[in-house]
Amino acid sequence: MPRARPSRGPVTLLTDFGTRDGYAAAMRGVIASIAPDVQVHDAAHDIAPGDVAAASACLERYWQIYPPGTIHVVVVDPGVGGTRAALAVESGDRLLVGPDNGVLSATLAVDGARVHTIAEPRYLRAPVSATFHGRDIFAPAAAHLALGLDIAQLGPPSAAPVRLSPPAPERGPDGWRGSVVEIDRFGNLITNLPGTLLSAGARVRLGKVLIGEIRRTYAEVRSGEAVAVIGSDGRLEIAVRDGSAAQRFRAARGAEVRIEGTEG
Amino acid sequence: MPRARPSRGPVTLLTDFGTRDGYAAAMRGVIASIAPDVQVHDAAHDIAPGDVAAASACLERYWQIYPPGTIHVVVVDPGVGGTRAALAVESGDRLLVGPDNGVLSATLAVDGARVHTIAEPRYLRAPVSATFHGRDIFAPAAAHLALGLDIAQLGPPSAAPVRLSPPAPERGPDGWRGSVVEIDRFGNLITNLPGTLLSAGARVRLGKVLIGEIRRTYAEVRSGEAVAVIGSDGRLEIAVRDGSAAQRFRAARGAEVRIEGTEG
Amino acid sequence: MPRARPSRGPVTLLTDFGTRDGYAAAMRGVIASIAPDVQVHDAAHDIAPGDVAAASACLERYWQIYPPGTIHVVVVDPGVGGTRAALAVESGDRLLVGPDNGVLSATLAVDGARVHTIAEPRYLRAPVSATFHGRDIFAPAAAHLALGLDIAQLGPPSAAPVRLSPPAPERGPDGWRGSVVEIDRFGNLITNLPGTLLSAGARVRLGKVLIGEIRRTYAEVRSGEAVAVIGSDGRLEIAVRDGSAAQRFRAARGAEVRIEGTEG
Repeated sequence: MPRARPSRGPVTLLTDFGTRDGYAAAMRGVIASIAPDVQVHDAAHDIAPGDVAAASACLERYWQIYPPGTIHVVVVDPGVGGTRAALAVESGDRLLVGPDNGVLSATLAVDGARVHTIAEPRYLRAPVSATFHGRDIFAPAAAHLALGLDIAQLGPPSAAPVRLSPPAPERGPDGWRGSVVEIDRFGNLITNLPGTLLSAGARVRLGKVLIGEIRRTYAEVRSGEAVAVIGSDGRLEIAVRDGSAAQRFRAARGAEVRIEGTEG
Repeated sequence: MPRARPSRGPVTLLTDFGTRDGYAAAMRGVIASIAPDVQVHDAAHDIAPGDVAAASACLERYWQIYPPGTIHVVVVDPGVGGTRAALAVESGDRLLVGPDNGVLSATLAVDGARVHTIAEPRYLRAPVSATFHGRDIFAPAAAHLALGLDIAQLGPPSAAPVRLSPPAPERGPDGWRGSVVEIDRFGNLITNLPGTLLSAGARVRLGKVLIGEIRRTYAEVRSGEAVAVIGSDGRLEIAVRDGSAAQRFRAARGAEVRIEGTEG
Repeated sequence: MPRARPSRGPVTLLTDFGTRDGYAAAMRGVIASIAPDVQVHDAAHDIAPGDVAAASACLERYWQIYPPGTIHVVVVDPGVGGTRAALAVESGDRLLVGPDNGVLSATLAVDGARVHTIAEPRYLRAPVSATFHGRDIFAPAAAHLALGLDIAQLGPPSAAPVRLSPPAPERGPDGWRGSVVEIDRFGNLITNLPGTLLSAGARVRLGKVLIGEIRRTYAEVRSGEAVAVIGSDGRLEIAVRDGSAAQRFRAARGAEVRIEGTEG
């Protein structure tokens, strides 16, 4: 039997399945059975269980860096088996599949994005379990997309997919006010404040703690000191050199961050 | 030099090596040297050190989902360097290599399974260390299998490979009694009770705690509530929605689970 | 557009980025955009943040096992954005890219090793951020190397790359004295003492604790007992069977290990 050659790819996997139970491996097995020649990349499996916001932040870090034709699979799905739909998205020449719980919001905001529900049984694994749609819905759908399927063949358009809006920065009398929206493995506090808001002389404050002026890089402060930089995603980030800002300041997502003394 | 083309694949890796010391990377390096074009998938590396039962449960989740010709490598091997043999198994059109410590038991139970010991030096890495058979025995054997080798070429048949029997459910006067056989990353308690034992009206009890009737999905209870479902492997599973049943009930493997009020 | 075929590969990734934030996925996305057909392997992402010594020890475990033409990417880079250079190394027919902080020292010690700095903008991702050189410098450089680029095209030779010397064993009146240089996931204490120093009858001591004579394998002692073996890298290693020597002896890197009673 000639193998179906993938016309797209690679496929990336983002889940909260961890790396000890074989759930991600089951997804890979499904993909290997349908589209054996497509490359499959582990993007991240250690998202905290059910943490849709963390998964969104993670996805934003890479989904547009991958080349056109990439299929991103996102399974952080605390509502699995309930009434939420399964989605297939085409956005900016990339394809994505995942639950309709907001985790794909950023991809829906791109001009021209198309969204369909995944419903066509011929592209799913039978029987579809009530608890493991990664294996039974998202993996087979992704594999068929890798073979060239159009998302419209998976099911009807989705009329109103869930869109989560991350909190937006606000302009106050003393400057901009935003918040920590992500904490990474290093304990860096990543905010929703675009670096473009920071003019010369602006100071950064985390809650009541003055972090100081913006620096170009962690290396500009001494080991153990706190520093505010424009992170690799273009947003304001608070770090502790060779340490964890999250631990140092006992900061969690949602913590307030201010930019003071800006003229803009 | 023309490259030897793999006639089988992919190769999957299941180990307790973690993802920080480079042990799994050494295995990948060996495979890449022998069979550079075969795809290698990380199935799971965060099995607790030496936890053969957890590795078995993990393997069961994916080994038959992968397509025929897949080579599954399993290296959870607390007896490395001792007298236990190294095995190569052909079962249900898949191939497996791993230590003879019971971790491959489920694959041996399939009709027509063949089992050989891995002993032929030409297919091993020389010298074979006493402490890292993943690199020196299992990875090279898997790579040669990917190139088309028959398991019989690796060594003589294994007369009596170790077979571990997971505890079986028992029928008592009040219903079925089983136990927790696996706890996954989400803290879900996965039992040895097949879902087919659950008739309408049956109630599930964990130790002395009444969990309640079986539900179709986690989403049928409120956040924080315990729920009994038929999991994705077809067995009874106890979960806490958006939480961890293992933590809530301080349950460990072996904990008793009962199905009460069944007519069957 | 015809795809550029990789003439080298695979590419391996060793980082301290963890598996939850999408940093490694961003690197993979860059590589997939430039060299879509090259295989990319996750070597290890769970190095402790900034732990250059652990990354070096990890790298030594696999870099020469991979076949000629492999490109090893190492991004454990606490000085990112500072004055340290980015390096490309050709050593023993393998290629490596990583920060000039000593993490590549072992590869520089090989006869004939060539070292260049990575500076040529056409092979980097623009704009180069100050905090994520894995994505902006090392991943694109590695991808271009996979397509056949010579390291000399990336930038000028590096005159004096940082070389870290691991502590060397010392010969004393009572035998050899070395130290623990690595602690692996199993809690095994891996030393800098080559196994060739151990003659018959030699005894191993960790600090003041007598471990005993050298054994061939963990399996020669009972579960829970300490044992000294020649590990898979040829160096003396202290382990506890089915346990953790690091926990048992509260040992850290740098702990003294002695070989007593040797004649050599």
